[in-house]
Amino acid sequence: MEKREKLDALFRPRSVAIVGASDKYDQISGRPLKFFVRYGYKGKIFPVNPKHETLCGIRCFARIEDIPEDIDLALIAVPNRNVLPVVTSCVKKKVKSIVIFSSGFAEIGSEGKRFQEKIEEIIVHSDTRAFGPNCMGFVNLHDSVPAFFGGSLENESNLIPGQVGFLSQSGALSNLCFAVAQKMEIGFSYLMTTGNEMDIDVSDCLEYLIQDEKTKVIACFIEGLKDGNKFMTMAKKSMEVKKPIVALKIGKSSVGRKASLSHTGKMTGSDEAYAAAFKKAEIVRAGSIEETIDSMFLLTRCSLPSGNRIGIVTITGGGAILMVDKCEELGLEVPELTGKMKQEMLEIIPAYGSALNPVDLTGQLINDVNSIKQSAALLLDSEEIDMVVIFLGMLKNFGEQIIEDIVELSRKTRKMVCVVWMDPPNGAIRILQEKGIPTFEDPIRCINAMSVVVRYADYLRKSELSKHTPGDLQGRKQVQLRKEDFDRMLELGSSGRKTFTEHETKRILGAYGIPITKESVASSPEEAIRRAGEIGYPVVLKIHSPEILHKTDVGGIELNLQTPEAVLKGYERILTETRKHAPNAMAGEILVQEAISASVETIIGIKRDPVFGPVIIFGMGGVYTEILKDYSVRIAPLSRQEAEEMVREIKGFKILEGSRNKGRADTNAIIEALLRVSELAMEFKDKIVELDINPFFVFQEGRGGKVGDALMILG
Amino acid sequence: MEKREKLDALFRPRSVAIVGASDKYDQISGRPLKFFVRYGYKGKIFPVNPKHETLCGIRCFARIEDIPEDIDLALIAVPNRNVLPVVTSCVKKKVKSIVIFSSGFAEIGSEGKRFQEKIEEIIVHSDTRAFGPNCMGFVNLHDSVPAFFGGSLENESNLIPGQVGFLSQSGALSNLCFAVAQKMEIGFSYLMTTGNEMDIDVSDCLEYLIQDEKTKVIACFIEGLKDGNKFMTMAKKSMEVKKPIVALKIGKSSVGRKASLSHTGKMTGSDEAYAAAFKKAEIVRAGSIEETIDSMFLLTRCSLPSGNRIGIVTITGGGAILMVDKCEELGLEVPELTGKMKQEMLEIIPAYGSALNPVDLTGQLINDVNSIKQSAALLLDSEEIDMVVIFLGMLKNFGEQIIEDIVELSRKTRKMVCVVWMDPPNGAIRILQEKGIPTFEDPIRCINAMSVVVRYADYLRKSELSKHTPGDLQGRKQVQLRKEDFDRMLELGSSGRKTFTEHETKRILGAYGIPITKESVASSPEEAIRRAGEIGYPVVLKIHSPEILHKTDVGGIELNLQTPEAVLKGYERILTETRKHAPNAMAGEILVQEAISASVETIIGIKRDPVFGPVIIFGMGGVYTEILKDYSVRIAPLSRQEAEEMVREIKGFKILEGSRNKGRADTNAIIEALLRVSELAMEFKDKIVELDINPFFVFQEGRGGKVGDALMILG
Repeated sequence: MEKREKLDALFRPRSVAIVGASDKYDQISGRPLKFFVRYGYKGKIFPVNPKHETLCGIRCFARIEDIPEDIDLALIAVPNRNVLPVVTSCVKKKVKSIVIFSSGFAEIGSEGKRFQEKIEEIIVHSDTRAFGPNCMGFVNLHDSVPAFFGGSLENESNLIPGQVGFLSQSGALSNLCFAVAQKMEIGFSYLMTTGNEMDIDVSDCLEYLIQDEKTKVIACFIEGLKDGNKFMTMAKKSMEVKKPIVALKIGKSSVGRKASLSHTGKMTGSDEAYAAAFKKAEIVRAGSIEETIDSMFLLTRCSLPSGNRIGIVTITGGGAILMVDKCEELGLEVPELTGKMKQEMLEIIPAYGSALNPVDLTGQLINDVNSIKQSAALLLDSEEIDMVVIFLGMLKNFGEQIIEDIVELSRKTRKMVCVVWMDPPNGAIRILQEKGIPTFEDPIRCINAMSVVVRYADYLRKSELSKHTPGDLQGRKQVQLRKEDFDRMLELGSSGRKTFTEHETKRILGAYGIPITKESVASSPEEAIRRAGEIGYPVVLKIHSPEILHKTDVGGIELNLQTPEAVLKGYERILTETRKHAPNAMAGEILVQEAISASVETIIGIKRDPVFGPVIIFGMGGVYTEILKDYSVRIAPLSRQEAEEMVREIKGFKILEGSRNKGRADTNAIIEALLRVSELAMEFKDKIVELDINPFFVFQEGRGGKVGDALMILG
Repeated sequence: MEKREKLDALFRPRSVAIVGASDKYDQISGRPLKFFVRYGYKGKIFPVNPKHETLCGIRCFARIEDIPEDIDLALIAVPNRNVLPVVTSCVKKKVKSIVIFSSGFAEIGSEGKRFQEKIEEIIVHSDTRAFGPNCMGFVNLHDSVPAFFGGSLENESNLIPGQVGFLSQSGALSNLCFAVAQKMEIGFSYLMTTGNEMDIDVSDCLEYLIQDEKTKVIACFIEGLKDGNKFMTMAKKSMEVKKPIVALKIGKSSVGRKASLSHTGKMTGSDEAYAAAFKKAEIVRAGSIEETIDSMFLLTRCSLPSGNRIGIVTITGGGAILMVDKCEELGLEVPELTGKMKQEMLEIIPAYGSALNPVDLTGQLINDVNSIKQSAALLLDSEEIDMVVIFLGMLKNFGEQIIEDIVELSRKTRKMVCVVWMDPPNGAIRILQEKGIPTFEDPIRCINAMSVVVRYADYLRKSELSKHTPGDLQGRKQVQLRKEDFDRMLELGSSGRKTFTEHETKRILGAYGIPITKESVASSPEEAIRRAGEIGYPVVLKIHSPEILHKTDVGGIELNLQTPEAVLKGYERILTETRKHAPNAMAGEILVQEAISASVETIIGIKRDPVFGPVIIFGMGGVYTEILKDYSVRIAPLSRQEAEEMVREIKGFKILEGSRNKGRADTNAIIEALLRVSELAMEFKDKIVELDINPFFVFQEGRGGKVGDALMILG
């Protein structure tokens, strides 16, 4: 809890020093002081600048050491070359926390990075916590702490305290979004921009927001995480206390990631790993700024829908169909009305409208403006509908009545009600928004926002359902290989060897209870024939050498050998071929292996992500994964449910399910193998860079699976 | 040209009668008259209503027959039961064109449809052209003809005449979009809402707009086309005269299509067919209302970019990266600056910014507000950049200067310049828009709109390049099968037979010059052995019966038979099996066929779409097409370029290109086969419902391909 107290000193300071404060009230140096005064900060303020006696009528100190009281928070707004001495003074004065606004550190490259490291060195060995550098600071809206220099605080509107904790690695962008959101009457608990995250990072802030009572919804702009698992752990806590996290990932594309790197100096993992991590941590991913802001609004104003079924009341058939298209794309259901409800609806709406869902009131609405209220109420009362959207346009003469009706509807229901109003009467949107009814001028924007909320509600339901099913192994075997054995295996290889052969990799996989092909290594044709006899025909021969990774490329494989003679010939052919193609490889030994038939080939793998650690991959064999990109990805460790999802979510699952001519493949065997691979990945997460089981043969249902070939890279 | 003249009477009438005009000026009956008066229509107006002496101070007639002059256009705003007599009167009076506002026709089901057909009957046998019913009418903005009852004309703003022809099958939605677009200062030539399209359809309107001199850009909302090819033919004409068509397809999803059907009673083809048709006709497809409206703006204000390379100037790194992500998703390139340009840029922008592209000016911009102009000018001058977007936020104190700078920039360049301005100073967006500079408050919205324009420019470039390459066949063989033969083959089957057997289908394909497997039908085991000897071993045996379509299901196939003995056994086994599984099928004959090896399996097919006619499909064999949905679709007839694209655009193309172990497949053989299949599809487009060539074996490069199995369904 000491850590928490220190962050309290940062985010809820009783005293603030502003080092480098100036009378340039439009600039970084002058703005924070102006904001502290303007927004009525309750604690003590100490401007620090040797050139001024007073600033904003407050006594100014020449140096931070001169301040006669304890300081909870010091804001540092000095040129970057002066940051080091100021930080040193702060530490000496036992300032509890600092915010470094100044830029010109890690984000500008190696020189700046060295400079930042010097400051970090001081902070690490102190009791002072640091925010930034290269950040815009933060705003605590409930306690009026505007430790921030962004222009959004210049807007005339007062800061609206509220439930959204807004966390961003991008200062300028969140400043703009904060301004836009406040104009939409969205209230915030905190805005935090973390900058270079030298000490306090986005996960620390997330933890603080999760513990903060006033924060109910969390929005994040993520550019790159230093420690993916720390963030995921926090996100899971957030799920436990039912605070939704909506995250916008900035830098999805390869060019974007590159630009992001130059922008913040942050490491960025692959977008696939982020997607998998967000899924695992049940973070709802938004696709745009608008979606993020809109979902802040919805999550703070509406009750969560208990399903994905949407009812649509519309005055434009075409517009409703556009929404239906988007609903289908995003997984929202637009159920048809059934018997009784359809009858009731037909009594309300005119015959030329449509009594299906969408309920099309048509332009005839102006003859009976009550039909909006009546039809929407019917949908909201139905157990077959989880939320309602009302699509209006113009209707200037009826604006007041319609608004009143919608407000009443929304008061009477616990379901989410949203409004789309194109070309609305003046002020209609604002009035509805103020009454807590999310209102949009574009139908697609509305459906996008609703789908974000539906996704969160879905996560929440599933997470409540699955609380009691951790990811342990069914009929779990003891792992027979311990770390020591693993290390010894590594030593077995020639020094500096980073790759395990197929046979070595399989021994490890076998020790984890993953079934592998029957096989042994032979040093002569005679031994190979003996081994083949033990294994049983047909067999496969493969060159066995730590220096040959791609056995096919060097002619190092003979398939489906039926007789001892074929083994003899095959043995010799492999040696001749490999000597030709890889003359420098140590290659005298051959792996004799049972031949596998009547199976489906799949791929199981581990890849180490720089941000999230081991990532597990599953796909169908061969071209499916490599060329068609049909594979699933999850962050290790896998729960059983995740392993099941991985198998189900690839398009090729239909192949595993069997077709007209083929039976169902043993998907349980895949799930077991995935869970065991996940366990291996976690136990040696610092060692294994990559594991590639290709193929993992899967037999008919009930008959299991087997590792056909495998390769492991360490580092 | 007579047709054109009649449409002139409709869209540019010299006299207008309004049948059912009333003094309820807020309703369908009163609005059109009010609008004609308010917007200063130059021709003669004749209200028709027996209950009034005058309306809006204009003399009113009891019946249309009473009007003593010729009428170019009659608007019909009477209850639907009265439409028939009014139309009859109009025809009698030789009114040149009518617009039927009334609803309650085909869109409400079979009863309304019959009612509509009665009216259609009268129109078809007259010289009168009809618009609607169930439509909002149209507005001709240049000549002030508001034959329209939509509320968008109630807005205070004057109608802004301009270059956009806006064509919509959805009345209410286009009415709303028209209002929104006019508020964005987008000028229109026409707004046309076609409703049930009893006589004049969306393609007729499209033709009119293509010929209209004032229309430069065409926007369409499409719910469902009656005649897809008519529309495509018009769209191609539009491309020839360089008028872009941006289309929003309403009813993409299955639920959406169903809703659309009930909304307008229109037939809707598959979304895949629409996508293929738009591609073929070079219609740019928009994804939302916003994209459609925004691209209207861009296309009327900006020059077309000569490539897809975008330069970004930004004050927020994070915001720029979001745009970069979107650019990559939409195929826009954000090239890095090269040596000299990078140097010049570094001189302009501060060291802590980034001199890559995006050019990040950071918050330091406020110290040197000129840097926007300088950096954007540098990008615009470069030959490596085709268009520029400037991302701003707030900057209230510098708004005027920045606006001035951007206007100057845009005046000096022929390249497209767009602005994103989040939380802008009051009025900034409007001022920039009025100066013709597209300005957005959201970065994703901006990139979406720019990408629509880039796609059109790309179509235009490609269409100019490929003008001289029609889709004729290389080394074209004479088609040996003529329609008569085809018909005779059909007769060959038992009466009412709708399906051709594999052997019959292949004969037809062979006649079109598509290579097929060597094969013959045998009626006894002895004959089968003889045929096998002629064909050469190994062979395949297949049951040959018009009543057995799925040969595998009944055990009707024996693969890879190497010897006469195997053929004998196989023959008997097939007959036993099929008698067991399909006891009622006439099945005494067996097809003897060469066995194919060393090939890649693909699928080639024809499907008849209700809207666009024959559609050609290509994919990789087996699960690739069926399960992984990896296939390409085009509307027949195919040009060679289209056939090439079809082969290239599937993900599985990489399999055809060959991998480490396998050579390149003969993609030319596929292209030839596709072109010949396309020709077959066109010649018998009324006959063939479906053709399924599965597999089409493709051999190594230079070795061609062969139809392995095929099935044709007629109807």
